Amino acid sequence: MSLTQGLRRSLQLQPDALAVSFADRRRSFRQVGDRVGRFAAALQSLGMRPGDRVAMLALNSDRYLEYLMAVPWAAGVLNPCNIRWSPAELAYSLEDSQSSILIFDDTFAPVASALRTQCKTLRTVIYAGDGQAPAGVDHLERLIEDAQPVADAGCAGDDLAGIFYTGGTTGFPKGVMLSHDNLLWCGMTVLAARATDKDEILAYAPPMFHVAGFAAAQAFWLLGARHAIIPAYSPQALAACIARERATDVVMVPTMIQMLVNDPVASTQYDFSSLRRIIYAASPISETLLERAMALFPRVQFFQAYGMTESAGAVTILGPEHHGLEGRTRGKIRSAGQATFVATIKIIDQDGQEVPRGVVGEIAVKGPVVMLGYWNKPEETAAALHDGWLRTGDAAYMDADGFVYVVDRIKDMIITGGENVYSAEVENAIARHSAVAQCAVIGIPHESWGEAVHAFVVCKPGNTVTADEVTAHTRDLIAHFKCPRTIEFVDALPISGAGKVLKHKLREPYWRDRRAVN
Amino acid sequence: MSLTQGLRRSLQLQPDALAVSFADRRRSFRQVGDRVGRFAAALQSLGMRPGDRVAMLALNSDRYLEYLMAVPWAAGVLNPCNIRWSPAELAYSLEDSQSSILIFDDTFAPVASALRTQCKTLRTVIYAGDGQAPAGVDHLERLIEDAQPVADAGCAGDDLAGIFYTGGTTGFPKGVMLSHDNLLWCGMTVLAARATDKDEILAYAPPMFHVAGFAAAQAFWLLGARHAIIPAYSPQALAACIARERATDVVMVPTMIQMLVNDPVASTQYDFSSLRRIIYAASPISETLLERAMALFPRVQFFQAYGMTESAGAVTILGPEHHGLEGRTRGKIRSAGQATFVATIKIIDQDGQEVPRGVVGEIAVKGPVVMLGYWNKPEETAAALHDGWLRTGDAAYMDADGFVYVVDRIKDMIITGGENVYSAEVENAIARHSAVAQCAVIGIPHESWGEAVHAFVVCKPGNTVTADEVTAHTRDLIAHFKCPRTIEFVDALPISGAGKVLKHKLREPYWRDRRAVN
Repeated sequence: MSLTQGLRRSLQLQPDALAVSFADRRRSFRQVGDRVGRFAAALQSLGMRPGDRVAMLALNSDRYLEYLMAVPWAAGVLNPCNIRWSPAELAYSLEDSQSSILIFDDTFAPVASALRTQCKTLRTVIYAGDGQAPAGVDHLERLIEDAQPVADAGCAGDDLAGIFYTGGTTGFPKGVMLSHDNLLWCGMTVLAARATDKDEILAYAPPMFHVAGFAAAQAFWLLGARHAIIPAYSPQALAACIARERATDVVMVPTMIQMLVNDPVASTQYDFSSLRRIIYAASPISETLLERAMALFPRVQFFQAYGMTESAGAVTILGPEHHGLEGRTRGKIRSAGQATFVATIKIIDQDGQEVPRGVVGEIAVKGPVVMLGYWNKPEETAAALHDGWLRTGDAAYMDADGFVYVVDRIKDMIITGGENVYSAEVENAIARHSAVAQCAVIGIPHESWGEAVHAFVVCKPGNTVTADEVTAHTRDLIAHFKCPRTIEFVDALPISGAGKVLKHKLREPYWRDRRAVN
Repeated sequence: MSLTQGLRRSLQLQPDALAVSFADRRRSFRQVGDRVGRFAAALQSLGMRPGDRVAMLALNSDRYLEYLMAVPWAAGVLNPCNIRWSPAELAYSLEDSQSSILIFDDTFAPVASALRTQCKTLRTVIYAGDGQAPAGVDHLERLIEDAQPVADAGCAGDDLAGIFYTGGTTGFPKGVMLSHDNLLWCGMTVLAARATDKDEILAYAPPMFHVAGFAAAQAFWLLGARHAIIPAYSPQALAACIARERATDVVMVPTMIQMLVNDPVASTQYDFSSLRRIIYAASPISETLLERAMALFPRVQFFQAYGMTESAGAVTILGPEHHGLEGRTRGKIRSAGQATFVATIKIIDQDGQEVPRGVVGEIAVKGPVVMLGYWNKPEETAAALHDGWLRTGDAAYMDADGFVYVVDRIKDMIITGGENVYSAEVENAIARHSAVAQCAVIGIPHESWGEAVHAFVVCKPGNTVTADEVTAHTRDLIAHFKCPRTIEFVDALPISGAGKVLKHKLREPYWRDRRAVN
């Protein structure tokens, strides 16, 4: 984690939101980010090297806030000076930390002037006020104006973030060295402390070997919540567990939700009044299913999490505020949400370059949740991790607000007649038919188009539908080239331990004699 | 951070709360902790060395939950097996990870038997069911019964926590290596995601150089909240900022709260309706002041944070649920709260040994928030950090529920006639007098008692009180030997930049000619 994480996150998710107000000045995250990038460039052009200490002696201001971001952005180390200290104490701390740059405001101009001559380590002083800079002193606003913004240097984790002087009541002041992670763990703690309900009880639906429930389980361990466990998922076993244990939270995969809403006993005969939150994860959910689940649990908060084993769980979360009417109107409910507080996400092309918003590419993830690597598989690790970025293999686009829309596994994408078809979109359309319980879409070999769209459909008990009816239904919802060319009715789909449809098993009979099996 | 952090936290804070329910079995955290310690010991006695992989192949159960804690507790590495996999896939993952121990339940007894003969790396198999163990197989319940619990091995951070096999749809399965921090960052993210309000605005009261506001500020950066800044604190400047910017959150030190509630204009003439939370920190607060603040802001949630620069901010938090009537009745409101999700706290004696609950000792802190050290001061660093534990210099006791009651800085403790007097307790008593605005208590030299209790008192504007009246008032509240022997009326107390009373400045005239100045 990095001190600049919060700023970078807002630059991606809400660049035009108001970031800071000071007196009559108001700046958006975009403006603050631009100034921080220039501020950092100016520090570097003044000779600041990675790890150099940069001090600031000033009253609170928007510029102070920018200093706190610009120094780590430029790979420097903060040294925020105690404004109550005597010049002698300040001189001691500047020399002890060997600070090479001192930034000051109008209030501290006289002291800064004295310190400049007194401290041998100071090479540069910068005036961060609203008036004229003293003679021979750089003016922060001119520096910011003249600089070209640089990218964040990427300091994080155990890197030294700042030296914070303390004490001085006994002997000399001591410079406390705090790392990026020190400060960020504390920040996360402050956030997490606000989220504590009393007496929470987590009901376990997914198998415990799977990472889907692991992060949530860790959260509940930290809360000191109770764990209510059933041997294996079935709609009635889970419903009975929730009712008996008065469970407040449950993690489910969409297949489990589907089984529950389709089960006439489990969905109607149990008391779900204790339930406060459902976190669903591990595979995309159709809007139809989500609507049915929200109708069944009207007072429950829904969280969608998107992630993978390689990221220890969630890297995006779609919170309950986007599951309501507004989320539906704005279409956010079709997304997997925004990057979590600790994950950085970008959508990249085949060359690893970030694509524009709205363009489909591969999801890449960076952050403290990214795996150490694959056990004993250096080649696979090198293929998955590039400079700290995890290539997920999932195709998605990001909208202007940083919401991530997963369209497919890249290998599940169908290329038919040169057009990309995302199986999830086709499945979503088929699932809207009232007779359909479950479906899965794959590409099968086709002489002229390369691949053709092929659908597997499971009907609801007591319902029937013809292939032509399904095709006609999808034509009302999606482009013709995306509609299934062929449809196969089956009793059930092959499902993994985590409840995901095993598409490779569906593909296998069609691709058996071809090389391009994946 | 460590996978066992949540369990250890609950063992300290709520050992008798229910931890897990499975079928008809229910166990408290104390029982789970005891079993985990024994389970870990059994693994070690079976030859498991640090870093060895321990696999489990079983349906969900309370024993599976214990496995997930016992393996990291014993410095092992988890390998939770996919219950949907074929014997061949399981054998591959066990051999690939070189798992030496396999734990299984009744459902997987036949597969485990086959794997035992097939996998060369498996040295031990353990039966974790309710019946009889197969011939030649250890029974988990017997192992737990026979073992003596061991202490947590202390694995954390980048240490490998588990290998989670994934894929297998294309080529061989891959073992994803996840560290303790990977899983815990994800867990904290899940918690933090629940705490998001929309449109939060943090008003800055403390000076930005000080760590008191830094962690909170980091939390608000992560949220993408707005920062509303005033140059320096005054009651009216802050009140005006809150009203104009519609601030939702503010971090304050008690001195600032006191100035605000005492200010007839700031406390009555501004619109505080936007305010949702006040986090106060950096020095103890008197109950009188807290009551007045809660009366002024009746709908605001109060959070007390205790911490220091050396811990990057808060290590205990007293949440709003303990500021209400229940907190007062149970006395929790006099505490600094419980350890945060990421900090481990113990109260130690001079030899570094943990003291019993209720006994005053020094607060020691461990966790990812503890500083890297003091800049350029190896001796001071070695004195402050012992094996990762930060010695805070603060005297406190912990109650049965893990609430920490800070009684004094250890160096502010007064020893008079052989009795320990905690200045905070005396200050609390004096502050209850209606004419008193502020006070501070120190020890001054005394011929026969070593030190005598001496108080500085600032009267409220327009109020007067005599020394005798103050003494008589305190005698109703605290033991006679704790009551001030001498009282000095002053216009103001010397205050640090963070709003703390500078006791060394108060002491200085009295101790100037002595060696024992501190």
